[in-house]
Amino acid sequence: MGSDHLFKKTIPFLDSKNFSDESKTVIDFIAEYYRNIEKYPVRSRIEPGYLSEKLPESAPFVPESLEEVLKDVSESILPGLTHWQSPNFFAYFQANASTAGFLGEMLCSCLNVVGFNWISSPAATELETIVMDWMGKMLKLPSSFLFSGTGVQKSAKLIGITKSNFRVITTSFSTKFALSPKNLRATIEADVKAGLVPLYLCDTVGITACGAVDPIKELGKVAREYEMWFHIDANYAGSACICPEYRPYLDGVEFSDSICLNPHKWFLTNMDCCYLWLKKPKILVDSLSTDSEILRNKASESHSVIDYKDWQIALSRRFKALKLWIVIRKHGLTNLMYHIRSDVDMAKRFEAMVATDRRFEIVVLRKFALVCFMLKPELESDGSELNQKLLEAVNSSGRAFMSHAVVGGLFVIRAAIGATLTEDRHVDDLWKLILEKAQILQSQDVN
Amino acid sequence: MGSDHLFKKTIPFLDSKNFSDESKTVIDFIAEYYRNIEKYPVRSRIEPGYLSEKLPESAPFVPESLEEVLKDVSESILPGLTHWQSPNFFAYFQANASTAGFLGEMLCSCLNVVGFNWISSPAATELETIVMDWMGKMLKLPSSFLFSGTGVQKSAKLIGITKSNFRVITTSFSTKFALSPKNLRATIEADVKAGLVPLYLCDTVGITACGAVDPIKELGKVAREYEMWFHIDANYAGSACICPEYRPYLDGVEFSDSICLNPHKWFLTNMDCCYLWLKKPKILVDSLSTDSEILRNKASESHSVIDYKDWQIALSRRFKALKLWIVIRKHGLTNLMYHIRSDVDMAKRFEAMVATDRRFEIVVLRKFALVCFMLKPELESDGSELNQKLLEAVNSSGRAFMSHAVVGGLFVIRAAIGATLTEDRHVDDLWKLILEKAQILQSQDVN
Repeated sequence: MGSDHLFKKTIPFLDSKNFSDESKTVIDFIAEYYRNIEKYPVRSRIEPGYLSEKLPESAPFVPESLEEVLKDVSESILPGLTHWQSPNFFAYFQANASTAGFLGEMLCSCLNVVGFNWISSPAATELETIVMDWMGKMLKLPSSFLFSGTGVQKSAKLIGITKSNFRVITTSFSTKFALSPKNLRATIEADVKAGLVPLYLCDTVGITACGAVDPIKELGKVAREYEMWFHIDANYAGSACICPEYRPYLDGVEFSDSICLNPHKWFLTNMDCCYLWLKKPKILVDSLSTDSEILRNKASESHSVIDYKDWQIALSRRFKALKLWIVIRKHGLTNLMYHIRSDVDMAKRFEAMVATDRRFEIVVLRKFALVCFMLKPELESDGSELNQKLLEAVNSSGRAFMSHAVVGGLFVIRAAIGATLTEDRHVDDLWKLILEKAQILQSQDVN
Repeated sequence: MGSDHLFKKTIPFLDSKNFSDESKTVIDFIAEYYRNIEKYPVRSRIEPGYLSEKLPESAPFVPESLEEVLKDVSESILPGLTHWQSPNFFAYFQANASTAGFLGEMLCSCLNVVGFNWISSPAATELETIVMDWMGKMLKLPSSFLFSGTGVQKSAKLIGITKSNFRVITTSFSTKFALSPKNLRATIEADVKAGLVPLYLCDTVGITACGAVDPIKELGKVAREYEMWFHIDANYAGSACICPEYRPYLDGVEFSDSICLNPHKWFLTNMDCCYLWLKKPKILVDSLSTDSEILRNKASESHSVIDYKDWQIALSRRFKALKLWIVIRKHGLTNLMYHIRSDVDMAKRFEAMVATDRRFEIVVLRKFALVCFMLKPELESDGSELNQKLLEAVNSSGRAFMSHAVVGGLFVIRAAIGATLTEDRHVDDLWKLILEKAQILQSQDVN
């Protein structure tokens, strides 16, 4: 190999013709993956460290062909995936990919603009504003709300609020696992008496563990009384609130300072994407803005534009608004509502099957498309071991993947229904699979 | 419109055939965009608020066709873009899109896995580890380094280090704008005498303003002496260090605690992506790990896997390793080195043209592919106004886009050479454009 290899270009980097050919090859590969997705075990079966045995220790010196790369994706990567897009994926919460989401992602990636301030690509900033408002209107948010990402206990730790100053208020079956305004007030009062200052309250619409909804209006009034920042985490169930029948869960949103929602969960939007509305964005901008000479420009100085770099930690910002815009337009509100409703219908179908089988119990009342249930234990057991075994038996079959939570001290199995490709038959198969594994477990128990 | 519209699905969400057809239409659209990219004004010419006049105020109720969406992208979005992929983009730093980067992005987006912990998709975690190591080896980093994202002054503010405790140490022409170990030591000593504790030192390899490189080894020794966290920001120029001739800029890296590099700048990787190597990842994990019941699983409890949720603020994590893996394999080290070297060659070509014209001056010695220059001012002027006018004249022409910095008190024009599609002819055209605009400015001056 001559040293001139070091100085030669041997492949095109971004040639239109080559770009088009190779991209279409990958599109065919992905279409084939979707077509066959049910053939893979849902939860990956590989052992830790498997991939380093299959791949070379260092990067190749000369280019490899797309065919070689795709062969390795098939043979080495796919077996190591837990298939989030499988219709038999019922774990955590779904991550809704869609054709429209992907089309938007492609355009976002290819235009590859870095929209940190307005002038760096005005359309990126302006479309973001528009799409945030579209969604805000679909959710019927008060006009005082605008747009950007968040987390809660971790965030508190990050900004220096120690665990000792963080209150986790227990919920219970009596309030359907919603945060009780009475308990909230008692917790605040005790802290105030101890000389502490209440700072921040997080309300959840569709909590991860069991889908519970905290009462926004009542909690919001308490937060306002104590002048706390009131945040609504509607990451999962917020998407459902575009349907009139779910919108009441957001009643009282006018009491809040911020609301966030993850369209990559339940809104047909490929990873990753987060809506964050703020009543007073200035507070965020005051905390996060920077004033670097290198980014000075007339538009910013005119104060007539938004520079999103001041709304986030990083400087670089992807043009994600393009993805959301295409998801909304290509589906239309009608299909987006259908999408929510049909997932809920499938969850109801599943819930009904569980509820009518006396061996099982629905542990928490279903509100959205998450069903929390358990196999009833023998007397004098909380069923934790039995249900762990059942869950593991289902997941290791490769035919479906669910996850779990501990709710009110009970180990419950969570069937989060709503992968884009899930249909009634997958839900029916899930129930058959659960019954099959439960039967094996119970017969073993008898022996 | 009947109310049954609310309950019907009128388009497929993720059907293989439809996915394939529509994706290929978008691929053709993008290929056409790349083919014609030079026809657009590089920096967008639209006025603030333009987009809200073109787009509807709310989301459509019924789906729109891909044709309608792409028509709007052409007519409403493209005019509002500053074209980062244009070969005439010389502002800030380039953001290198590539066919390979896009192929990886497509796969990442379509598999759409959420790799927060190992079991949520093992291949995502394992490939990330492998690709980080590939790059670490290409950079010849000490084996004590592994992997993940950062920022500096803003980060300090975020974690509660106030501006008064943050030291910006001035650099000057005498050290070619590199941080002087002597000045560093003097600053630390003064603070220590005032009872302060030195905590963190940031060294930059290829600083944004002018491409200067701080001396890692000398600064690292000072940092070690005072037991400070020593971070190397190689976001821009780190990519160049895969070439033996640039690797010496990383000598002394063994003194550092962390190094970061943005492949989305100069490594043919579509937005966004950041390498972060840490000598002791445990420190990060201790700060950021969470222990949620809902995510408990055997693999994590075996401590034989990495859960990347504990390395970042967010829970969700995209499978970006897939993109990097494909970028590296599809180009091979040989093309990646060619890419760096050809950009540097173009920068040298441009620098030579500027340097041989007596009306201009190279302000800072070029090290990579960034050329900082100015049009020499009349006596008794620092040239700031003149060069601002020149830069604005070039940018508003739409034929090229550069940005600026203030270095040693001087306003300098930055020509950041390295957009994926830039060739010699674009650099020659840039120089012609600068001359043309300078001539107009100078003739106006005389009148």
